[in-house]
Amino acid sequence: MKIDKLCGERFKERPSDCVIDSHALMVRGGYMKNVANGIYSSYMPLRRITRKIENIIREEMDKIDGQEVQFPVVMPASLWSESGRYESIGSEMARFTDRNGSPMVLGMTHEEAAVQLVREYANSYTKYPFMIYQIQTKFRDEGRPRAGLIRVREFTMKDAYSFHTSQEDLERYYDICYDAYNRIFARCGVPEVITVKSDSGMMGGSVSHEYMLLTPIGEDSIAICKECDYRANMEAAESIIENSISGETQPLQEVYTPGIHTIEDICSFLNTPLEESCKAVVYQKNMTDEIVVIFIRGDLDVNETKLTNHLGEAVHPAAITEESGLFPGFIGPVGMDREKFTVLFDSSLKNTHNLSCGANKPEYHYKGLCISRDVGDVEYIDLAKIKEGGICPKCGRHSISISRGIEVGNIFQLGTKYTKSMSMQYLDSEGNLQYPIMGCYGIGVGRLAASVCEAHHDDYGPIWPMAIAPWQVELCCLRSDDAECKATADRLYDEFNAENVEVLYDDRNIRPGAMFSDADLIGCPVRVVVSPRNLKEGVCEVVTRDKEISEKITSDGVIEFVQKIIADRLKANK
Amino acid sequence: MKIDKLCGERFKERPSDCVIDSHALMVRGGYMKNVANGIYSSYMPLRRITRKIENIIREEMDKIDGQEVQFPVVMPASLWSESGRYESIGSEMARFTDRNGSPMVLGMTHEEAAVQLVREYANSYTKYPFMIYQIQTKFRDEGRPRAGLIRVREFTMKDAYSFHTSQEDLERYYDICYDAYNRIFARCGVPEVITVKSDSGMMGGSVSHEYMLLTPIGEDSIAICKECDYRANMEAAESIIENSISGETQPLQEVYTPGIHTIEDICSFLNTPLEESCKAVVYQKNMTDEIVVIFIRGDLDVNETKLTNHLGEAVHPAAITEESGLFPGFIGPVGMDREKFTVLFDSSLKNTHNLSCGANKPEYHYKGLCISRDVGDVEYIDLAKIKEGGICPKCGRHSISISRGIEVGNIFQLGTKYTKSMSMQYLDSEGNLQYPIMGCYGIGVGRLAASVCEAHHDDYGPIWPMAIAPWQVELCCLRSDDAECKATADRLYDEFNAENVEVLYDDRNIRPGAMFSDADLIGCPVRVVVSPRNLKEGVCEVVTRDKEISEKITSDGVIEFVQKIIADRLKANK
Repeated sequence: MKIDKLCGERFKERPSDCVIDSHALMVRGGYMKNVANGIYSSYMPLRRITRKIENIIREEMDKIDGQEVQFPVVMPASLWSESGRYESIGSEMARFTDRNGSPMVLGMTHEEAAVQLVREYANSYTKYPFMIYQIQTKFRDEGRPRAGLIRVREFTMKDAYSFHTSQEDLERYYDICYDAYNRIFARCGVPEVITVKSDSGMMGGSVSHEYMLLTPIGEDSIAICKECDYRANMEAAESIIENSISGETQPLQEVYTPGIHTIEDICSFLNTPLEESCKAVVYQKNMTDEIVVIFIRGDLDVNETKLTNHLGEAVHPAAITEESGLFPGFIGPVGMDREKFTVLFDSSLKNTHNLSCGANKPEYHYKGLCISRDVGDVEYIDLAKIKEGGICPKCGRHSISISRGIEVGNIFQLGTKYTKSMSMQYLDSEGNLQYPIMGCYGIGVGRLAASVCEAHHDDYGPIWPMAIAPWQVELCCLRSDDAECKATADRLYDEFNAENVEVLYDDRNIRPGAMFSDADLIGCPVRVVVSPRNLKEGVCEVVTRDKEISEKITSDGVIEFVQKIIADRLKANK
Repeated sequence: MKIDKLCGERFKERPSDCVIDSHALMVRGGYMKNVANGIYSSYMPLRRITRKIENIIREEMDKIDGQEVQFPVVMPASLWSESGRYESIGSEMARFTDRNGSPMVLGMTHEEAAVQLVREYANSYTKYPFMIYQIQTKFRDEGRPRAGLIRVREFTMKDAYSFHTSQEDLERYYDICYDAYNRIFARCGVPEVITVKSDSGMMGGSVSHEYMLLTPIGEDSIAICKECDYRANMEAAESIIENSISGETQPLQEVYTPGIHTIEDICSFLNTPLEESCKAVVYQKNMTDEIVVIFIRGDLDVNETKLTNHLGEAVHPAAITEESGLFPGFIGPVGMDREKFTVLFDSSLKNTHNLSCGANKPEYHYKGLCISRDVGDVEYIDLAKIKEGGICPKCGRHSISISRGIEVGNIFQLGTKYTKSMSMQYLDSEGNLQYPIMGCYGIGVGRLAASVCEAHHDDYGPIWPMAIAPWQVELCCLRSDDAECKATADRLYDEFNAENVEVLYDDRNIRPGAMFSDADLIGCPVRVVVSPRNLKEGVCEVVTRDKEISEKITSDGVIEFVQKIIADRLKANK
C-alpha cells in the first residue's frame, strides 16, 4: 500500500473533544471518523488492526472447540421477552417497529439468540458440551458515549456461549476459556491485562471475571491487594470493617445542631472522628419510587451495585419531599419508621457504640447512639464500597489499593437463567429433563484496539505490537526526486511485497519531518528509511517504533533483517 | 471438527415453507435457522462458507487497490437527509429514535457513509482515484422476504465505493472492477454467472451491470440475445417494435360493444389480431395519486421501471373511480383529456393505423384508429416490456429470449449524485472546485452462498465447490465399534489436521445410510470412507461429492491423494 492514496487525514493538533490519548491519536492518525455520538467509521489502518484482532480471537476460540456462528443484529422483541430482558433493560436497548408493525430490537448481547439457535438441537445430554461464538456488530444506546472507542454505542464484539450438563463441566470449560483469554491478550500485545472478580449485573450469573487493562484513564475501579492475589472490581469487592468497642458506652443524647446538615459537619461540631458516626443515604426504587434508607458508617460510601443486587431492582438517589416525613440532614435510625421505608444497615455499623447520627427532627442530632440498644435487632449487610487501605477479603491485611482499568473482556458463569426462562431442556442419561448450564464470554474488538493504543503509545502516536499493527513495516523514501533513492526504495517495496511482508510505502515528495510525523501516527513497528546520504554508504536505516532497534543495514540485507525482527516480535508477542 | 458436537439439526423432510431447493437444503442441512421473517442465524457450516466467500472477495478487492474500511450499521437520519434518501426511501428503511430523541436509520447501503468518511480528506485531485469497501451487516425491511437467503431482511454485503476526477477514470476503474467480479464468481465456483445491463433504480446512476446466475427460480427476468452478446435485465431492456403500415387506412368508427372490457375480447369480437389494438393501462403516482394513462400496443405490457424512470417518481396500478371520468374497459386516446391526466404513448404505437381502442364512453369502442389523424401529434416513448422472440436492440434480429436469474452482484456508475447532494468537492489541477464522480460495487455474501447451492446441488444436498466448502473433506468411520476401523479413521483424522486439510470427522455409532445422508447435506467435496470391509483389502474409499472420482486407495496413500484433489480443484475453481 502506498500512503499517498491512503484515505484519512493525519494532523498534529490534539482535538479538543478527545479526553484520552488513544482517542486523540486515533483521530489524529486517520484511524476513525465520528458519524454520530458514539458511532464511528473506521479507515483502513483501524480496520486492518481490528481484523487482525478478530483473527487472533477466532484462532483461540477455534482452538478451544468454539463453533463460529452468526446471530442477527436485528431480533424480534418476542425473543427478548422470553428471557424477560425486553422489559428489564431500559433505554440502552434500541427498539423499532418493522413495516409489519412487529417490535424489533438491536442486539446488545446475544444470550437469547444463542439459546434460540440451539434449543431444539441440544435435546440430549450426548450433544453437550459445546461452545458457539460470533464476531458481530452490536448496538447499545449508551447515555454517555465517551473516550473514543472505549465507550461507544455501536461496536464489534466477539461473544461466545457455552452449554453444559453440570456445574463441574462449566467450571472446567470456564478455566479453559480463562486461559484462552490470557493467550488472546498476550498475542495482541497486552500481556499486562489482569483478571478481576466482577459483579455479573444484568447478565444474571454468579461467578464472573473481567479482564482489565490498568490505566489511570480507565472507567472501572479495581480493588487490588498488595499482599496477596486478591483482585476484584469495586462493584463486587466485599467491604470488610472490623470495629471493636472501646471506652464506656454513653447514653443517647439529643444535641441542638442548627444549620448542620452533613455528617462531616456534625463530627467536626462534636469533635469526633467520622468513623464514630452513622450516616444516612437515601435512594428510591426506580419502578415504584419507594424510599430506601441505608445507614452506613460516616467514612464510607454506598456501593450502588451491591444495593441493586440486594434489592433485586435498580435505584436512584432520592428526591426527598416534605410529605415523606424525612428531614434531609437530620435522618437517623432512632424512631425511623421501618414499616414505611425500606431501612438497611451496612456491616460497618456492626459492633459500634457512641455514634453521632440524625435525630429525625429538624436542627437536632443524637450523640451516643448504640444501635442494638436504641434501635433494636437489625440485620447488617455488606453495602459499602471498599476503600483504599481497606481490609483484603482474602488475606485480611489492610492492603487494598484502588486502581483504575479498562475492561477489555469478560467471562461469566451464567447458570440456568436463560435456559430456564427460555425453556431449553435436554434429556439426561436417565431420561430426565434438565436445564443446561451456560457460560458466556465477551471481548470488545474496537475497545481492545484502543486499549492497546492506550497502553503502548508516546506523544507522537501509537506503538503497535507486531501481531496487530496495521502494517508491519513503513518504508520511507526521503527523496523521491533523487533517482537512486527512489529506485532503491521502489525495489525494497517490491521485495517486501514479494516476501509477503506488509509494507506501507511513503514516497511522497514531502519534508522528512512531515513524513516521520505521519509514520509515528500510523505506528508501524518497523521503519525503513532510504535516503541519499545513507545510500552513499550503501546502507538504509532500520528503526523500530519503540526505539529498541536503530541500525544501518546494507540495502541488500534490509529484507532479511526486517523479516527477522518481525518473526522475533511475533514470537515474543511484542 | 467432529460431527457429533456440530450444532444444527439435519433431517430428511423438505420443510413445507421452503420454495426453492437451496433454502430447503440449507435448512435440512443445519446451515441456518429462522429468527424472524427474513432474519436468520447461521450455524457453523454456513458461517464457514460465508467467511470463505468474504475472504475471496477481500483478496480480490485488495488486489484492485481497495481499502477495507468499516461504516456503522446505525446512522443518523441527518446523513441520509443530506442525499435526500431519508425522504425518498419508504418503508424498506428501518428507522428508530435513540434515547436522546435523534432519528436514526439502519444502513441498507452506504453511499452516504462513504461520502461522509472521505469528503474532507479527498479535497485535492492528487488524492484520486481511490476505492474503499467494507463487508458489513445491512438491514432492508423487505415487504416479502422469501427464498431463504436469496431475499432476506438482514444480510451481509460487500459494498465498495470508488471516487474519480473524470468519467474516463471511472470507466477505466469500472472495467477493472468488472473483471475482479468475474474472478470472484469464478473462484467461488460459479463461473456461469453472467453480466447484464441493468436499471440503476434508486442508486441514481447511469451505466450499471448486474451479475446474474441463471436459474428458473430466479426473481429477475433477463433478456438475452441468442445471436449476439446482448444481455439486459428486463427492467432495462429496450423494447423495439417495427410496425409497417399495410392496406388501406380505414375511417374511425364507433362500435357498440356491450359487456366487452378487455383488449383481448374486443380483438376477438372484431376478429383482428392483438397487434392491431391500442390498449390503455392506468397508473397513479404514489405521492399525489395523479392518474397516468399509458397507451400501448395490445400485445405488449408496460415496464413499470421504465415508467417510473420516465416520470421520476413511483407509481401503482390505478384505482379508477367514477369521479375520474374514466370508464374502465372503454378507455381510449380519442378525446382523452390530456390536461387532466398524464397521457403517454408507447413506441409500439408508432407507425400504426386501423387500431381498435376504447371510445371513452361505456359500452363503446372504436375501430380504425389512426393516432396521428384522430389524436394529433404525440410523442412516442419506450415504456414496453421486451418480449420472448422480440427484436434485439443490438443486432436487430428477432432473437431475444427471456431467462430468469438471481442477482449475485452489481456494479454502478453513480456519477455525482451523492457528491453533489452532500457537497463533496476537490480542487482540480487548475484550482477549480469539482465534484468527484463515484462508482459503487456490491455483492451479497449470503445470497451468493445460496446461489452457489442453487447452481450446484442434487436431491441429497449441496455440492460445494472446494474454495468455499464448509470443510474440504468429510471422513466417515463406518464402524466405530470396530477397533481397526476406528484406529485407522482416528489416524487419518490426525494426519489431515496435521496437514491443515479441513476435515469433518464422523465417528458416530450410527447406520451408514444415516451417516451418508448427513454427509450429503453438508456437501464436503471429498469423502473418505473407512470401513472394515475395505480395510481387509488395506484400502479406504475416496469419493467426491460430484461423483467424478470414486477410488479405493491404500490407507497410507489417502492423505496425499486427497491433497491432490484439493489442489487440483482449487486451481480449477471447481
